Amino acid sequence: MKNFDINEDPHRRFNPLINEWVLVSPHRAKRPWQGQNETISTEELPKYDPTCYLCPGNVRANGMNNPQYESSFVFENDFAAMKQDEIIFEDDIKHTFFKAKPEQGISRVVCFSPRHDLTLPEMEIGDIENIIRTWQKEYTDLGNIKFINHVQIFENKGSVMGCSNPHPHGQIWAQSSLPTQVEKTQNSLKSYYDKNQTTLLEDYVKAELKAGDRIVIENDHFVALVPFWAIWPYETMIISKRAVNKITNFTAAESTAFAKILKQLTTKYDNLFNTSFPYSSGIHQSPTDGLIHPEWHFHMHFYPPLLRSATVKKFMVGYEMLGESQRDITPEKSAEILRQLSDVHYKSLVK
Amino acid sequence: MKNFDINEDPHRRFNPLINEWVLVSPHRAKRPWQGQNETISTEELPKYDPTCYLCPGNVRANGMNNPQYESSFVFENDFAAMKQDEIIFEDDIKHTFFKAKPEQGISRVVCFSPRHDLTLPEMEIGDIENIIRTWQKEYTDLGNIKFINHVQIFENKGSVMGCSNPHPHGQIWAQSSLPTQVEKTQNSLKSYYDKNQTTLLEDYVKAELKAGDRIVIENDHFVALVPFWAIWPYETMIISKRAVNKITNFTAAESTAFAKILKQLTTKYDNLFNTSFPYSSGIHQSPTDGLIHPEWHFHMHFYPPLLRSATVKKFMVGYEMLGESQRDITPEKSAEILRQLSDVHYKSLVK
Ligand SMILES: O=P(O)(O)O[C@H]1O[C@H](CO)[C@@H](O)[C@H](O)[C@H]1O
Ligand SMILES: O=P(O)(O)O[C@H]1O[C@H](CO)[C@@H](O)[C@H](O)[C@H]1O
Repeated sequence: MKNFDINEDPHRRFNPLINEWVLVSPHRAKRPWQGQNETISTEELPKYDPTCYLCPGNVRANGMNNPQYESSFVFENDFAAMKQDEIIFEDDIKHTFFKAKPEQGISRVVCFSPRHDLTLPEMEIGDIENIIRTWQKEYTDLGNIKFINHVQIFENKGSVMGCSNPHPHGQIWAQSSLPTQVEKTQNSLKSYYDKNQTTLLEDYVKAELKAGDRIVIENDHFVALVPFWAIWPYETMIISKRAVNKITNFTAAESTAFAKILKQLTTKYDNLFNTSFPYSSGIHQSPTDGLIHPEWHFHMHFYPPLLRSATVKKFMVGYEMLGESQRDITPEKSAEILRQLSDVHYKSLVK
Repeated sequence: MKNFDINEDPHRRFNPLINEWVLVSPHRAKRPWQGQNETISTEELPKYDPTCYLCPGNVRANGMNNPQYESSFVFENDFAAMKQDEIIFEDDIKHTFFKAKPEQGISRVVCFSPRHDLTLPEMEIGDIENIIRTWQKEYTDLGNIKFINHVQIFENKGSVMGCSNPHPHGQIWAQSSLPTQVEKTQNSLKSYYDKNQTTLLEDYVKAELKAGDRIVIENDHFVALVPFWAIWPYETMIISKRAVNKITNFTAAESTAFAKILKQLTTKYDNLFNTSFPYSSGIHQSPTDGLIHPEWHFHMHFYPPLLRSATVKKFMVGYEMLGESQRDITPEKSAEILRQLSDVHYKSLVK
């Protein structure tokens, strides 16, 4: 019998945002890897690619030409997962097992830059501020549409994350329902707010700043940290210090600080394995259902799959799919590694 | 305005086992694929591989020799995610955000066959019955250990599912807590049973057999179907017709019928894209906490990632991680495709 050592002993941690546990196996980082290696493209991308359907002036799948855009550029996804069509539907409550209902939605693609080769960490702060303005505009425009109650802004980066085009871009899926993960989060935020009259993340950020060991970056308005309950090896969250519930409520100073922390965090990511670091990221914020939502607190999740190197990722498979998420390195260790990495992009040193 | 057509219109479906929704986009199967292709090994495997740490007689990472086993063979995982050590732990309830507790567990590897090259679809029914007996024995032995309350039997098949060795094998992770997904399932099963005095899956199977369009295989004791709420393109469940709550309660006839449906289903999977079909699979059944659990109903999940071909998988990424799972082909269509595939393995036709 020995005393519990969270840095050494297998344990479970609780995620209060979605009420789920994660299995942490600190000792397991030592196991040898004989499995699949990802292929990572090391080719230098051109500034403009004539075959890229996202580059300015080029033709898209639907035959339309992109404009000669100079900053960011938004268009409707030609193969959207949802449609705007209004559907007549009579809910048949007799169906215990076959419960389905139509869903209305709009999908858009957001090109971050006319440059085919520039990802977030390599952009200027001003260019990132411009993306933030685009996100604000889309959140407002889409949110104002009567049937849209939720606007999901996200990015899939890297082929390992199903991204089919290296031209820097994100997506927005706006829809009538709250998606499953958002609904879970909202329930947790709401019950915390009702009880405490502060947002869960306001108090969480304070507790994390006090603890210190999971903080990656801090500036006047935002914190980037590896959450205590992170499932992916280098998962992080960017959380606003102020309890601001949506991106459109940022002050000018907050927008700039958000741009800065985005650049810094993604630079550290690239520097971790000297590669254009793959991830899926996305913003969770207030639904656009017309209600006030004081319980919501702006945050951005980063879910990066890499574990050991630019080519070895963590597989969330058998046990994780059937049982629960499992991680091999503690969040504290990951935060320490990210914290110590340089803010200067490795490519700018080589050049 | 048009009437809702579940085969054409985007919609959400509800999974009553874990209380989550999935977004279904039937029209989206048409979109072109320009993204990552998986690498699939087409090399013919030898019956015995001297470098394989799972083959009979060979040496494992810990220096131990495998016996000259002739059917299935079980050993403790050398790099287990959990340990058996008893840990002294004082629960500190002051930690709202930093909730953690030690977890005890045992991980084992189950080699399905001494043959390096034989996966489930290519095995004889008798050999598969033998694996079922091994699962029964492990479930009993591990379940009898005082600190083990749950025994998760699963298989990761194929390098795309993080499997590092093609020698046919599965794993068992047994532990003190109910893993997240199992706990969710148990809650749903329990509240259904308390209300109806029948198991949720007993009634679900009846409803599916009546509907017919999601059934892939049926025999006297088991049904293989694409669940109404499936998230993976060719996801299936094998469910016992009788409300049997654990594998150790199978009759002899049920064991044989289970072996047969396992062989048939995995054969259809291989025949789908003429490839050794990757998946993670696993059994959900009664916990081993000493309670009776009449609400539990034996079932096995298959989560296969492939979508369009042997090399193009479905990516559960940005929207799916931040919002909710999304699928491009209806479960009814997938079931129809699987149903129509031959029960004779494509390799046996070539030979
Ligand atoms: O123990 P293995 O087979 O090496 O590991 C594989 O299965 C485990 C259980 O699903 C996962 O945690 C690992 O990420 C995966 O690579
Ligand atoms: O629309 P895209 O970028 O082609 O598709 C990618 O992102 C989507 C949203 O996360 C996923 O559903 C797809 O599986 C993925 O390949």
